[in-house]
Amino acid sequence: MTTDELHNLALKSIRVLIADLVQQFNGGHPGGAMDMAAIGIALWKYVLQFSPNNPDYFNRDRFVLSNGHTCLFQYVFQHLVGYKHMSMEQLQSYHSNITDSLCPGHPEIEIPGIEVTTGALGQGIANAVGLAIASKNLQATYNKPDFPVVSNYTFCMVGDACLQEGISLEAISLAGHLGLDNLTVIYDNNQITCDGSVDLTNTEDINAKFKATGWDVIEIWNGSEDINAIVKALVRSKTSKGKPTLLNVHTSIGTGSNLENNCRAHGAAFGEEEVDRLHVVNGFDPAMKYYIPLEVYGLFKDLPEKGDSIEKSWDLLVESFVEQYPDLGKEFLKRVNGELSCDTWKSLIPSSFPVTPTPSRSSSGLVFNPIAKNVNNFLVGCADLSPSVNLIWDKKVDFQNPNIETQCGINGDYSGRYLHYGIREHSMAAVANGIAAFNPGTFIPVTSTFFMFYLYAAPAVRYGALSKLKVIHVATHDSIGMGEDGPTHQPIALASLYRAMPNLNYIRPCDSEETAGAWEIAIESKETPTILSLSRQKLTQYPGYSRRDMVSKGGYVFIEADDAQLNIIGVGAEMCFAVESAKKLASKGIKARVLSFPSQRLFSSQSIEYQRSVLRKGHLATVVIEAYAPNGWERYATAGFNMQEFGKSLPGAVAYDYFGFDAENIAHSIERYLSAVSKDESLLWEFQDLNQIKDH
Amino acid sequence: MTTDELHNLALKSIRVLIADLVQQFNGGHPGGAMDMAAIGIALWKYVLQFSPNNPDYFNRDRFVLSNGHTCLFQYVFQHLVGYKHMSMEQLQSYHSNITDSLCPGHPEIEIPGIEVTTGALGQGIANAVGLAIASKNLQATYNKPDFPVVSNYTFCMVGDACLQEGISLEAISLAGHLGLDNLTVIYDNNQITCDGSVDLTNTEDINAKFKATGWDVIEIWNGSEDINAIVKALVRSKTSKGKPTLLNVHTSIGTGSNLENNCRAHGAAFGEEEVDRLHVVNGFDPAMKYYIPLEVYGLFKDLPEKGDSIEKSWDLLVESFVEQYPDLGKEFLKRVNGELSCDTWKSLIPSSFPVTPTPSRSSSGLVFNPIAKNVNNFLVGCADLSPSVNLIWDKKVDFQNPNIETQCGINGDYSGRYLHYGIREHSMAAVANGIAAFNPGTFIPVTSTFFMFYLYAAPAVRYGALSKLKVIHVATHDSIGMGEDGPTHQPIALASLYRAMPNLNYIRPCDSEETAGAWEIAIESKETPTILSLSRQKLTQYPGYSRRDMVSKGGYVFIEADDAQLNIIGVGAEMCFAVESAKKLASKGIKARVLSFPSQRLFSSQSIEYQRSVLRKGHLATVVIEAYAPNGWERYATAGFNMQEFGKSLPGAVAYDYFGFDAENIAHSIERYLSAVSKDESLLWEFQDLNQIKDH
Repeated sequence: MTTDELHNLALKSIRVLIADLVQQFNGGHPGGAMDMAAIGIALWKYVLQFSPNNPDYFNRDRFVLSNGHTCLFQYVFQHLVGYKHMSMEQLQSYHSNITDSLCPGHPEIEIPGIEVTTGALGQGIANAVGLAIASKNLQATYNKPDFPVVSNYTFCMVGDACLQEGISLEAISLAGHLGLDNLTVIYDNNQITCDGSVDLTNTEDINAKFKATGWDVIEIWNGSEDINAIVKALVRSKTSKGKPTLLNVHTSIGTGSNLENNCRAHGAAFGEEEVDRLHVVNGFDPAMKYYIPLEVYGLFKDLPEKGDSIEKSWDLLVESFVEQYPDLGKEFLKRVNGELSCDTWKSLIPSSFPVTPTPSRSSSGLVFNPIAKNVNNFLVGCADLSPSVNLIWDKKVDFQNPNIETQCGINGDYSGRYLHYGIREHSMAAVANGIAAFNPGTFIPVTSTFFMFYLYAAPAVRYGALSKLKVIHVATHDSIGMGEDGPTHQPIALASLYRAMPNLNYIRPCDSEETAGAWEIAIESKETPTILSLSRQKLTQYPGYSRRDMVSKGGYVFIEADDAQLNIIGVGAEMCFAVESAKKLASKGIKARVLSFPSQRLFSSQSIEYQRSVLRKGHLATVVIEAYAPNGWERYATAGFNMQEFGKSLPGAVAYDYFGFDAENIAHSIERYLSAVSKDESLLWEFQDLNQIKDH
Repeated sequence: MTTDELHNLALKSIRVLIADLVQQFNGGHPGGAMDMAAIGIALWKYVLQFSPNNPDYFNRDRFVLSNGHTCLFQYVFQHLVGYKHMSMEQLQSYHSNITDSLCPGHPEIEIPGIEVTTGALGQGIANAVGLAIASKNLQATYNKPDFPVVSNYTFCMVGDACLQEGISLEAISLAGHLGLDNLTVIYDNNQITCDGSVDLTNTEDINAKFKATGWDVIEIWNGSEDINAIVKALVRSKTSKGKPTLLNVHTSIGTGSNLENNCRAHGAAFGEEEVDRLHVVNGFDPAMKYYIPLEVYGLFKDLPEKGDSIEKSWDLLVESFVEQYPDLGKEFLKRVNGELSCDTWKSLIPSSFPVTPTPSRSSSGLVFNPIAKNVNNFLVGCADLSPSVNLIWDKKVDFQNPNIETQCGINGDYSGRYLHYGIREHSMAAVANGIAAFNPGTFIPVTSTFFMFYLYAAPAVRYGALSKLKVIHVATHDSIGMGEDGPTHQPIALASLYRAMPNLNYIRPCDSEETAGAWEIAIESKETPTILSLSRQKLTQYPGYSRRDMVSKGGYVFIEADDAQLNIIGVGAEMCFAVESAKKLASKGIKARVLSFPSQRLFSSQSIEYQRSVLRKGHLATVVIEAYAPNGWERYATAGFNMQEFGKSLPGAVAYDYFGFDAENIAHSIERYLSAVSKDESLLWEFQDLNQIKDH
């Protein structure tokens, strides 16, 4: 059999297998996976550097399936190229009710050989940009002449849909700007989406658009079949200098089926009859389901051994590298092993802080910037609010395209670790996920912007939590206290989202000491991303009360009181109202315990005994004071002084006052509440909203 | 004084006034507002068709400030052109602590003459696309030869930052595709953002990018000064046929100041000294703050009268139109007055539904599609999941670029009312806000996609709630019951966000009857957007129990029980588990009331008496069953059977089972709970998570 004949047989059998796999449980996405078969052969057989026997081989090329619904494409090729976990039996678990299936409806990072979890469109391409950034940074930091210890490429498949999503368009623009020539995006251009042909919604010149954003473009016209052309283009893309590459591969969805080029090939089984027909026209027996000819297996059978050899060579290279450059080599090995480049990072955190009122965004800089400076794992970035978020350390160098000389004179290169993401919050968080996914612990990406704009970034923050990627999000200007920018910029409901989100630590420290504790948790966390929620405005410091070691408990007794009549929960920037209203109440003979509550999630993971010792719920009325919607606090408090509406454009202090956040007013409300409770204890059963909206 | 001299004086005095206004309270955004002064003169003096005496004049040109932080630009021109509310005293309230200021830190829709609230970057340009769509649709529906009753244009200012945001890039691509030649985007190209020069993050060829997406581009090089060139370009943009226009206007931020072209001119006051200097070099006395020469007022003084005359002409045109086309004219007037084109819409809702199990996404189609077909106010759209969301009515016509013949043969024109938004969820919601903002009630935009993807759209959904825009979001596939697509597509925390969000009705109906009630509320709502949260899978119908009239209460007694030992709250797609577990408990002699709870927000706005009659809280243990994070339910329930982690890729029914959602298992958990409570009543004080995660 000639190579062309073998390729042809492989294409046919892969397509028929995919049709079979979707048919078995009458569901899934066959069309794209089928039309990408030629791309798959080109990639895995001829281009990707990887090791089936060790999916985690450090210097492997990264492959991301941004059009994640075509996951059968990746699973089938994992099977063919010899990933041990991906047996034919596993493939048949797609869409089954087998709970430990390794073939979920979208690729999941927990599966060997899957670099990132994808599904919601556009996440993957932004992750791929992150993977390419990670690689560039390692190359610039560790590679030496004759020692290219990091040399991998990133390949990312996208479909028509990915290229419509805003997150993708942001990431494409960033990748072009940064000149990431180690990134190739392969566009499965089948011109079909769920609703019909793409020209229902998009008629742009995609090549011109990519070129305008600094990409090389290679077009392939017969992309469902022409493996040789795809291989050539992929190889050429690896030699591109200074630009990422788009391979615009024209394909036909549902190749060879009677639904070819039809949107019905996208997301449903073809039906038994058509699947039988597909078998026949491709020369296979309809009775033989899930059949791959031995010759096709043969095409890929060299790959595990080739992978072993690639890995062996790399091991030897690293060994010589470490001999030649012992200090750098040692650090490199630490990074490869997911360790921090500097073990003593915790000693860099100040043991105490100025007692003068300090914005927690400034506290955060005091805590973290010395660490960022000294620990190479951190790749810190900001969505164009650098002067506001305080994450610039002394002598920081930008991660920047070295060919760019900026008008403002701030330049950098690929060894830099401060990344100006641009006003691209969503892709910032997704790129950060990609950086974190490069290899566990090699990087700890940090993102930053105003808290409100983490709503733009929310889908990517969620993917980080879902994927157990350790990313730290620094969210400043976190309440109505941010002031004059007004309700558009003042978060009210957002914390309720992040407090409800599984595997995410949302932490709102009340002063510098708690900010130190919050950073420690974020850095020490293994598989949980963190949002640090920080104030724009100056916050009173509480030395002797606030405790960095207690932040990990989520909530703790801030000020104890004997014979207390109630708890007051203070949170983050609004702690001052808790402490001050407790004082006002004390002057009236009402004793209140004050609790600090930086993180609901961390608190909820404490023992029930600890939780009860803090809350004494059932015994004490508990009032939470926070300038957010109360939703979620009802678990811990019996009443709240919170926000029931959107904010207002006023100076921060005036905005607080406008919504009744004033110790005198709050104390008065609490007094009325306690009095009502004393007359009718059943009120404790109903969460009470204490802030009657002031007349305005 | 020649016109050029007068223009020059106006430019100088406007820039100095802006510097003064930012200096007075030492905060705000002067730089962009200053460099856009020439654009403002060109727009308001020479191009915009509007009426200062009636900011709501129906056929006015719409102006949107997408770079909302430069709001002083708009406020100052409102003052100059004679909007009555915008006195010099009002201008001086910018950044003050005056609570009824009409000059907030970002433009807010409540202020006369402000079309949409902007702030978070990119929202405005997407709104502008919506405003242009609204106008196109009205034109195609009502205009007749010699009766161009709708003829307005939409102009939108953007800055460098807007053009980096994904939402903008989506909206730009959509506007180009749709060929919205009634839209002009004016790009304040000052190449400066907060962090420094734009080339820190973006070095693309913006003109080429716009051209590639189907826009006309006009470049203006001396945009801080050259009013004539800007006027010419604006006028030319109005004659563009079949394409929207980008005016790429090169400007210098902080024009004339010592921070010209410096990022420090973006978001801070210049300092007293520099402001004094600015006065002097522009020929003004430093002691005279907030000074506009009489000649400059003179330049704009014809505009109120001109506006009256424009409006008068339009009134006469409409009068003749109504005479000539009485039926169409009557409908047009209804739309102008914000009324529905068909008064009897409610009678189109079926009075009863099939009792066979029905997905609520199908129920929604049964309820709404006859209304959509018959009521012209509805402009319905989908982010490429049309086959899944069931909003296509009989003989629907697409809102589509009439010059496009699609490959799939589905064509349309501007009179169509079904809009394929593409895979652009964020801009879909923002474009819908713009359509709603065209004029209150003229349109009711409907968007649709999977519920999970409303996280992509969340910032725009929030702007709708903040701006009191009546938009209806149809969110299908709303829980783990959606099945095989897996955790990426299964919402867990998202409802907590929308339930916490002010002025948003998130409604999760349990069957067709409640779906009818939910649609009624959504349509009858005046200033509150709605999310209808619907199932992919078939739901048991509860005729005789579910009540459409009670959905407006948010929660109600579904199945009453004498001597009940507990309440079970059922919600949406998980109602079946509430009803079935109550039955299981009944068979064991435990009596439970079942409550249906489609909307927390609607329930919380009922009287306390009503709430108590439903919940009997304080008397009864109350268990909520919902496959979301419990956060927020603690207000109403004492325990919950909910999700504590992300979902799983399994068929819907199997996914429920995997996480323990099974009547037998739930009943068993509840039994254990009641038994524990009977031993220790204080457990009722602590919300109990009943779903011990099953081993997996």
